[in-house]
Amino acid sequence: MGGDFTREEKDGLYKAIFSRRDVRSHYTSRPIDEEILTRILNAAHHAPSVGFSQPWNFILIKNNEIKKKIKESFEQEKKLSEDMIEEPRRSKYVSFKLEGILDAPVNVCVTYDPSKFGPFIIGRTSIPETGIYSVCCAVQNLWLAARTEGIGVGWVSIISNDVLKKVLNLPDHVTPIAYLCLGYVEKFAEKPDLQTAKWLPRLDLKDVIYYEKWNQKQNSDWYKIQELIKTNRDYA
Amino acid sequence: MGGDFTREEKDGLYKAIFSRRDVRSHYTSRPIDEEILTRILNAAHHAPSVGFSQPWNFILIKNNEIKKKIKESFEQEKKLSEDMIEEPRRSKYVSFKLEGILDAPVNVCVTYDPSKFGPFIIGRTSIPETGIYSVCCAVQNLWLAARTEGIGVGWVSIISNDVLKKVLNLPDHVTPIAYLCLGYVEKFAEKPDLQTAKWLPRLDLKDVIYYEKWNQKQNSDWYKIQELIKTNRDYA
Repeated sequence: MGGDFTREEKDGLYKAIFSRRDVRSHYTSRPIDEEILTRILNAAHHAPSVGFSQPWNFILIKNNEIKKKIKESFEQEKKLSEDMIEEPRRSKYVSFKLEGILDAPVNVCVTYDPSKFGPFIIGRTSIPETGIYSVCCAVQNLWLAARTEGIGVGWVSIISNDVLKKVLNLPDHVTPIAYLCLGYVEKFAEKPDLQTAKWLPRLDLKDVIYYEKWNQKQNSDWYKIQELIKTNRDYA
Repeated sequence: MGGDFTREEKDGLYKAIFSRRDVRSHYTSRPIDEEILTRILNAAHHAPSVGFSQPWNFILIKNNEIKKKIKESFEQEKKLSEDMIEEPRRSKYVSFKLEGILDAPVNVCVTYDPSKFGPFIIGRTSIPETGIYSVCCAVQNLWLAARTEGIGVGWVSIISNDVLKKVLNLPDHVTPIAYLCLGYVEKFAEKPDLQTAKWLPRLDLKDVIYYEKWNQKQNSDWYKIQELIKTNRDYA
């Protein structure tokens, strides 16, 4: 079982997962091949969605006037955020490059439209947020597909959703979920930038796994996997 | 560029994306190999996270008493949902099998803990929900990795988060994001169950793409990709 994937195909998936990075700089000027962009968008569109509601839309942006307005929102929100953190971390934070809106040839705003096929969506009745969760899965598909194509993706989250809605003409009921910057890069960083900068460490796998209930780190029914997880090596 | 992935490695990623299914039945009784489960969890742990906050935890569940309590919550929530839809769709909805909580050997609850490394998280200052979005990306990594290993994953969303919090002893500040059922399957369905049952159709790719602004389906700057997207074939 699992036999429908060759070793190399499996490796391809894990390689994409472990080498995917949030890219904010070093985009090349090469325009994105539109056949490849189509393939990446199709991968995003094949994400799981609650009740098969496919509640996502993808707005492709290369117009510079639009990008500049989004960038202004980033600058404003970044300024606001700088007052939320104290020295000496503040200076370090201020020095980070956190977006590539104007550098990346293509921006993509991924949105959530709860009205699609609604109001009754299978599986969305108890937890309405699952509609948004579906859109996030689509973003991750897009990100992984782009990685295999040599295209870097950066998710800009220091941004005002109100500005996004206004600049992109979103209807009231539609929520922007992700604002992504896409472009070819010469190479991908070995580790996440914030790990390299020693801003935060990668957690050990064992620190994010519990057994049967919250905070249970030991459980005799899970003895073997506990041992395996302890010795799990960090991939990136 | 993109040259660091071979054709077969790329194909592996796309194959995982296009053949991944939400699995609710036909799990085999074979226990999940714990080395493979470790690898899948490690893939989830290498998802992108806002400000490298890694705000996820994974609670592994095989205890039957716990599973039964979760299943009871499903039954209750399902009943409530049945009153939200009218005949003739109601009967069809009632007939669907929507979870495999007791059938799947391993259940995994994926949670969001906003307090990890907080309160200041880079990139989470303007849109606090981005912490939850990170957890969803981890779920999608898990789902794709499981697919390459022949392990089916079903996301149960007809469930009460209050019950989950109580049964799994979650602290007040922690939110359950996904309740997943994992098990080997003999084969994966060719298309999503709800598509096969003609509950909802797969949208055409062209219907989810806009250019520069919401609802703009034509834009001369994007002429070539519009043509490509129109002829894009449905993968599943």
